[in-house]
This record gives sequence, structure tokens and C-alpha cells, in this order.
Amino acid sequence: MKKATTIEQVREAIGKAREKLRQASQQGGSNLIGFVPTMGALHAGHFSLIDTARRECGFVVVSIFVNPTQFGPNEDYERYPRPLEQDLAGCESHGVDLVFVPTVEQMYPAGFSTTVRVSGVTEMMEGQFRPGHFDGVCTVVAKLFSIVGADVAYFGAKDYQQAVVIKRMVADLNLPIRIVVCPTIREKDGLAISSRNTYLDKHERAQAASLYGSLQLAEELIHNGQRNAKEIIRAVRRHLAEHAPLGKIDYVAVVDPESLQPIDEIKDDVVIALAVRFPSARLIDNIRVDVKS
Amino acid sequence: MKKATTIEQVREAIGKAREKLRQASQQGGSNLIGFVPTMGALHAGHFSLIDTARRECGFVVVSIFVNPTQFGPNEDYERYPRPLEQDLAGCESHGVDLVFVPTVEQMYPAGFSTTVRVSGVTEMMEGQFRPGHFDGVCTVVAKLFSIVGADVAYFGAKDYQQAVVIKRMVADLNLPIRIVVCPTIREKDGLAISSRNTYLDKHERAQAASLYGSLQLAEELIHNGQRNAKEIIRAVRRHLAEHAPLGKIDYVAVVDPESLQPIDEIKDDVVIALAVRFPSARLIDNIRVDVKS
Repeated sequence: MKKATTIEQVREAIGKAREKLRQASQQGGSNLIGFVPTMGALHAGHFSLIDTARRECGFVVVSIFVNPTQFGPNEDYERYPRPLEQDLAGCESHGVDLVFVPTVEQMYPAGFSTTVRVSGVTEMMEGQFRPGHFDGVCTVVAKLFSIVGADVAYFGAKDYQQAVVIKRMVADLNLPIRIVVCPTIREKDGLAISSRNTYLDKHERAQAASLYGSLQLAEELIHNGQRNAKEIIRAVRRHLAEHAPLGKIDYVAVVDPESLQPIDEIKDDVVIALAVRFPSARLIDNIRVDVKS
Repeated sequence: MKKATTIEQVREAIGKAREKLRQASQQGGSNLIGFVPTMGALHAGHFSLIDTARRECGFVVVSIFVNPTQFGPNEDYERYPRPLEQDLAGCESHGVDLVFVPTVEQMYPAGFSTTVRVSGVTEMMEGQFRPGHFDGVCTVVAKLFSIVGADVAYFGAKDYQQAVVIKRMVADLNLPIRIVVCPTIREKDGLAISSRNTYLDKHERAQAASLYGSLQLAEELIHNGQRNAKEIIRAVRRHLAEHAPLGKIDYVAVVDPESLQPIDEIKDDVVIALAVRFPSARLIDNIRVDVKS
């Protein structure tokens, strides 16, 4: 496994990889470069993305960069976990070919002044509670895509809105990369695995499982015939109020899976997404419900 | 010469070109793809860009697209000249390999919602008088760069601020393309060649030469020792008032060539840029003055 800290090192390694892949593909191997952008603090969710990339691609790149521009002024940029040695060991053991660990100065040198902004699908849910967040995400992802020049990028479904926003950006800017969204990985009690779970104290952690519990309740209601989104939102909120009293709900939303527009009467697949703010960590989760099943 | 109207056709043609260039470069030919993005109505300025690309690259792509998003609501989008057959013949005769002529729907399909915005260098001069213009330019250029995947792109120095903005975007987003800025091509009387010159009536056309005349005056003043930008701006404005009375001055600016920040006391190279609004057409021009020569 190679480790690159500068853009030039990445480009050189990718150039060499392309040459090797061209030769390998003549023997039937994959000539795809797969990319998993991360903020580090790698967990089973990230490793499932990496493993998928490893299966599908001839060369796998992981970036580890805690991107300051996607954090709000009162968010957790400073205390976000950065266990770099452990992350590198994890990448190595999952067969990553190249890890890119840039500095903030490498990504945002003096004079930096460009923003990639997606409107529409960024306005609700996370966009409403984290203003500027998706500008930061889109800009850094556009940069990383350009630097790595991969063919496929892997994102987790836990950050559902992020995946929709990235797909929108890729389509709109005609970026030559395919976006693959992989299923959310959960703890045994259903809590979606997240780097921020480590912030939780034991009381919060116990209650955090009810985020997924409330989404399962919503799914059950829909499968039992409930089609009124307001009723579902009410039931989810009630469930959270009862089982996660330490948490403050930012939103519970029933939305169209593509447009993210709120749905009133459920007729087709929906995504139910929520954010809960515990004293130690803000958590998000979502579930996609197939109405026809 | 091939003509592509869809993004898929461009990608296919570029894929084939890359293969051919790879082989050609083994015999010492250039393996570079050069790109000249235009709005059509091609003139000697465009052809000088194309000829430069032709000399430097193994494969030359020209796009012709009157981009609606870079025109303001009261600007000339509708009446902008679109002599497509003539443009195609010009490309052919200048040795262009591929012309991309997309429709508006191809570039901005339903649901399009991404903007690439450069701040800072977009705020003054054209940015001040054409709000939103550079958002439109950056977004379409980012798209075209992604679609074509060229190694080098050629822009004219007549649109000086545009070239600075594009270079900023390319640096900030780490786009894998080199930007080459080619000298302004002028009519015999000094008027910078522009597609919009055709709008001018004969009185306006006669006066329009004084834009460059006023820039030459500024250069002369600097070479004669004038270092006070206010004095230079005053002289340029006086010259324009006298020689182009049909025109209304949008701005005359003495700026740093990279940051485009206004200069008070001239110590190093400066760019003097101006925009004049005639009844039939708004014209821009600029000159770079080397203080040391």
C-alpha cells in the first residue's frame, strides 16, 4: 500500500496504476480505479465500501481528510477523531492500493476561492440544519474526484442525502465517474455505525438504538397500510420521545428518494430520514421503504 | 472533421482519439488533446486559438455553445449571432478534429441544479456589471472540461478577467487541464475582434477603435513615468469621452494581473481593463503594461 500526502504523489501513483491496469485488463482483470473518500476514523461502514471497491476494481484508493469546510462553526471539526495509524493499518489489511492523506493547506492553499454548489436537494433535512455543509462536501468531493481520476466512487447509504447530492453534482457537471451507494452497516442493536458514535456516553448510546427502532416502526406502519406521512412522522417522533429522551429531534422526514421532496400521501418508495441531537453527538439515520413489498 | 451533438458522441470520439494519440506518441507525435471552447460566431481571434491548439496538440476539439446561463436577463442571448454552417467550415479549414455543438437541453437537462462559483476575482469589473455572468461561465466551462477531458484549453486575452477566473477555478478544483491564454487579435484600427462588433452601426464602429486608443494612451503614460493609477484612469476616461461619445463607460480599472485588485500606485506590471456600452453593443478590452520595459 502506498501513502500519498500531496496531489502530485497521487497523480504519479494513479498514472502508474493506469498503465498496469491497461496491461492487466488484457488478461481479463478489471481496469477500473475505485475510490472511497473518507474523513478517517474508519469503521465497519467504511470497510464495507472498501471491500466492495476491492471486489469491483483493479486499483483501490482511499482518501482520509477531515474537511474543515463541511463543518459549521459550532460543530465538531476540532474534536473529530483522527486515529491515523489505526486507519492506515485498516486500509492495508483491506487491500487498499493507495491512501491519500492531504493536509488542509494542500487542499485549500492561500487564495482558494471556488465553491461547487448544488441547489434543490441540498435545501431540506441536513441542508436545513447544517447550512453550508453540502457546499463544503461538494467542493471537496469535486476536488478529490479530479485529483484521483477514479472510475467509480463508493458512498454509504447512511448519509443518504449526501449520496443524492453527490449524484446530482456528478450528473450536472458530467464528471466521468460512477457513484455506487452501499448499504448502511449497523451495530447489533441497529444503531447505524458512525465515527461520531464514539462521542456518546453510555446513556446516550443505549438510547441511540431507538433511531433505527423508530425507522423500523415507520416501515412496519407503511407495510401495514399506513399511507399518511404525517401519521408516520408523528409515530416516529413519539417513539423517539419515549426511547431517546436525551435526544432533541432536528427533523423526521418522509421524502421522495430522488428529489428529497416531502411526501404527503405515500404511493411509491419513500425514504424516511431523521436527525437527533444528543448532548454529545448529533446522529442521522434513514431507511428506504418499498411500498409494494 | 467530426461533429458531435451529444456528450456520448464526444466521449466516444475522445476515447478513440486517445487510443490513436497513444500510438502516434510512440512515433514522437503529440499525445495532447487541445480544446477551444467558444460561443461560435468564430472570428480571427478564435482561429488564432485554434491554430495554436493545432500546432501544440495531436487532436483539437472546438465547442460551439451559446451558453444561456452566462447572459443576464437584459443581455443579448437571443440575438447573439449563430452562423453555424460558416463556423463549421471555419473549423474544418483550420484543421479541427472534433466540433461539439450541444443543445441547451443536452447541457442543462431538467433538474440541473449545480453551480461552480469563484469568488474574489469575479467581484470587480465584469463581475460588477454582469452579476451571475462568471457563475455561468465557470459552470459551463467545468462541464465542458469534464466532457472533453482535454489536456490543454485555449482562451483569449481579450476576456482577461475570464481567463483569470478560469485559471482560479482550474487550480482550486485541481482540474487536470492546462490553461493557455493567447494574445488579443485586433482589427487594423486596433479594435479587439469580437463577435459583438457586428452589432455596431458605422458611427459606433468608428468610435470603437478609441477603446484600444485609450489603452495605448495609458501605456504611454506609464512608460513616460506616470505611476498614479487615478491619473491614468482619468486620462483614459477623458480620451473615451472625447473619441467615443456614443459610448457609456461601465468601468476603467488599473488592476493587479493576478488578483485583479485595484492598484493605486503602479510599481509592477498592471492590467488596464475597460468596458464601454455603446447603444448597440457592450465592448470590453484590456492591455497588460510592463512597468520595467
